[in-house]
Amino acid sequence: MKTYFYQKLSNLEKQNLLKRPTIEVEKFSVIVKPILLDIKQNGLSAALKYAKQFDGFIGNEMRVTQQEFEEAEKKLDSKIKKAIITAAENIRKFHSKQIPRSYEIETMEGIKCSREFRAIENVGLYIPGGSAVLPSTMLMLGIPAQLAGCKRVVVCSPGKKGKLNFPLLFAARLCGIDEFYKIGGAQAIGLMAYGDINISKVDKIFGPGNQFVTTAKLIVSVDFDGSVIDMPAGPSEVLVIADENTNPEFAAADLLSQAEHGADSQVVLISTSENLINQINKAINAQLEDLPRKEIAKKALEKSFALIVENIDDAICFSNSYAPEHLILNINNAESYKSKIINAGSVFVGQYSPESVGDYASGTNHSLPTYGYAKTYGGVSVDTFMKSMTFQKLSKAGLKNISGTVETLAEVEELIAHKNAVRIRTAE
Amino acid sequence: MKTYFYQKLSNLEKQNLLKRPTIEVEKFSVIVKPILLDIKQNGLSAALKYAKQFDGFIGNEMRVTQQEFEEAEKKLDSKIKKAIITAAENIRKFHSKQIPRSYEIETMEGIKCSREFRAIENVGLYIPGGSAVLPSTMLMLGIPAQLAGCKRVVVCSPGKKGKLNFPLLFAARLCGIDEFYKIGGAQAIGLMAYGDINISKVDKIFGPGNQFVTTAKLIVSVDFDGSVIDMPAGPSEVLVIADENTNPEFAAADLLSQAEHGADSQVVLISTSENLINQINKAINAQLEDLPRKEIAKKALEKSFALIVENIDDAICFSNSYAPEHLILNINNAESYKSKIINAGSVFVGQYSPESVGDYASGTNHSLPTYGYAKTYGGVSVDTFMKSMTFQKLSKAGLKNISGTVETLAEVEELIAHKNAVRIRTAE
Repeated sequence: MKTYFYQKLSNLEKQNLLKRPTIEVEKFSVIVKPILLDIKQNGLSAALKYAKQFDGFIGNEMRVTQQEFEEAEKKLDSKIKKAIITAAENIRKFHSKQIPRSYEIETMEGIKCSREFRAIENVGLYIPGGSAVLPSTMLMLGIPAQLAGCKRVVVCSPGKKGKLNFPLLFAARLCGIDEFYKIGGAQAIGLMAYGDINISKVDKIFGPGNQFVTTAKLIVSVDFDGSVIDMPAGPSEVLVIADENTNPEFAAADLLSQAEHGADSQVVLISTSENLINQINKAINAQLEDLPRKEIAKKALEKSFALIVENIDDAICFSNSYAPEHLILNINNAESYKSKIINAGSVFVGQYSPESVGDYASGTNHSLPTYGYAKTYGGVSVDTFMKSMTFQKLSKAGLKNISGTVETLAEVEELIAHKNAVRIRTAE
Repeated sequence: MKTYFYQKLSNLEKQNLLKRPTIEVEKFSVIVKPILLDIKQNGLSAALKYAKQFDGFIGNEMRVTQQEFEEAEKKLDSKIKKAIITAAENIRKFHSKQIPRSYEIETMEGIKCSREFRAIENVGLYIPGGSAVLPSTMLMLGIPAQLAGCKRVVVCSPGKKGKLNFPLLFAARLCGIDEFYKIGGAQAIGLMAYGDINISKVDKIFGPGNQFVTTAKLIVSVDFDGSVIDMPAGPSEVLVIADENTNPEFAAADLLSQAEHGADSQVVLISTSENLINQINKAINAQLEDLPRKEIAKKALEKSFALIVENIDDAICFSNSYAPEHLILNINNAESYKSKIINAGSVFVGQYSPESVGDYASGTNHSLPTYGYAKTYGGVSVDTFMKSMTFQKLSKAGLKNISGTVETLAEVEELIAHKNAVRIRTAE
């Protein structure tokens, strides 16, 4: 890892360290746009064509059958089943507190205003399936959708030669999923966004994916005939803050668990101790040797960097500017710094809180904002599957109380019909 | 207004009535994209060039001075001042209940998970100024930003020949605004999204606007160097549901107050009574005569329609599919239907609740989802200016409690470094 002294950096150098690798949306758009257009015009048959071409899909029946769900439940190893159930329970416990509260207040006598929440009726979840099976992502999207009360939840995931694996199907059933299509990539996003005669479109699409999926989600999100999306996405990231007391083996393991995600993973280490950074580098090299995804992790580490700071406040200042998806506070009195964290997706507090617990089972969501979007987005939550509405009910007296205000403002804005709508009701 | 019998419509005809007029994003993109690119590369000087070209801006000082704020406060008519203050008070009262709540729970022994909220630090508000002055929009965006605690709130609005009017400046001051630029259109969006050496970019852009502004917002929202936006937007809309007892003059006034917004306004009337629809049409024609914005309203009404339904449930079913920005329930026992409303921006309950009270002063927000986006978005609220973060803190015992689950799932997903990060901490 390249190492910098924070104090010695110019402002421009600091700015450059905050930057993520460019995402080549334009380049991928060239491939993805025609696929989406084809599906918009020709529906399922077009989607099937691309599934055969890109995912090696076989046959014409894309939807998972009851029999497949049952087979998964029957044949799945009981240890894996138990792990999925435990993770699901923690995720459910944590997310069940997120259902937003309605309220009603009287802003003036006779003017009752309220805010209520409703589930988004029609949602689509994308579960990637390229390099590995991701039952955890199924739980992270399926459980909040279920808690929100979404009426229809569609899932798409690429089946290898038309087959989905048991852990994923088992996790889907735990989330009450019934409508599951074996399709991935841009074609899955197109199918969910535009639908078909027999598969109606969804209103909002959730879930991570490769650059084809990410580009497709961006395109449909700005098409008025498309669907809105959970959030824009880039490669996964971790920022680890460590001090003199940090166990270098722990920090190394955390940096590697991010690095193994993909060659484009972003890994940042900040410490008050140059000596510790050296120890962590040594530990990384040692631990790296036994990893099956060693080559991927190595590539990610080549682009990563370490930063030496004078104190933890400087580290947090940099982190807030970077806005990491995952932030690990492996420092003394970690909890006392919580209130200073402004921009981060999910924060791991103290030495016994590795990122992998949040990826799977602590209860928090792992669908998190990357690429600096933690400045404006939170992770997926129950409220990401809901939206608010407001109501107002005025009595005749209430309308009279506010009529002068409304009429004056309508005049200022030169909207006289707005004024009339009040006057005609209060003039009697 | 063209009138249809709901029961006689085919499914395809019903679908067509739900459609909004096409928004020509592609057409506007051709003009807007080069402007945005120029500003991205050349900052303020490019923005100034377009402000001069399109808004008739004069000079080089775009930022509102303290003197201008003070002059507005001194010279503004006291009646208008009072109306703005009353509206602001109601908006503040209603929105102050929206600050989302943090929580912490122990999902398993030794695993403490929490969710906290932070204000988005850097936000930009766009206040249109083309056809009329909009102090109300200033309040609707500025007050929730202030309640959320955003550190920096930038406002842009086109000044006519470099002048902003007193009500707008007065309203801005009420919201604690200090950084206000006299610039409108796509160039304002570009300036906020990309910034300049002396004006740093914002993270999220809020506010309505014409098709140039809307297109610019969409473009910057999918540019990784740009800003995220509050919501996609189309023309303003109202759907009025009326029954046999509805006062036709009230309903006519409400339909007209939407129609006068713009020639592209969407106006829909649904009633159980054909007779009432006829009376409302007559009332519209009579009231229309005295409106200053008569020609605009007429154009909007030409495209609007009425629907005759058998019962109120059918009306609500259609409304939920249409997902109107504004929904007026001018019917008997209106309140009893609240729970059936699934998709709408803001709902006006009962005969004394015209849309114009919500536009200005009831307390609810008037920045609302249009074009069917009420299916997935709520109106602007305090939480639109905030985002969530999650935290987890595990004790060593807590990590041991969950280690088996995490290790098993990491194996299923073939992420062995994820497993190691747990094992290395629990093996000691």
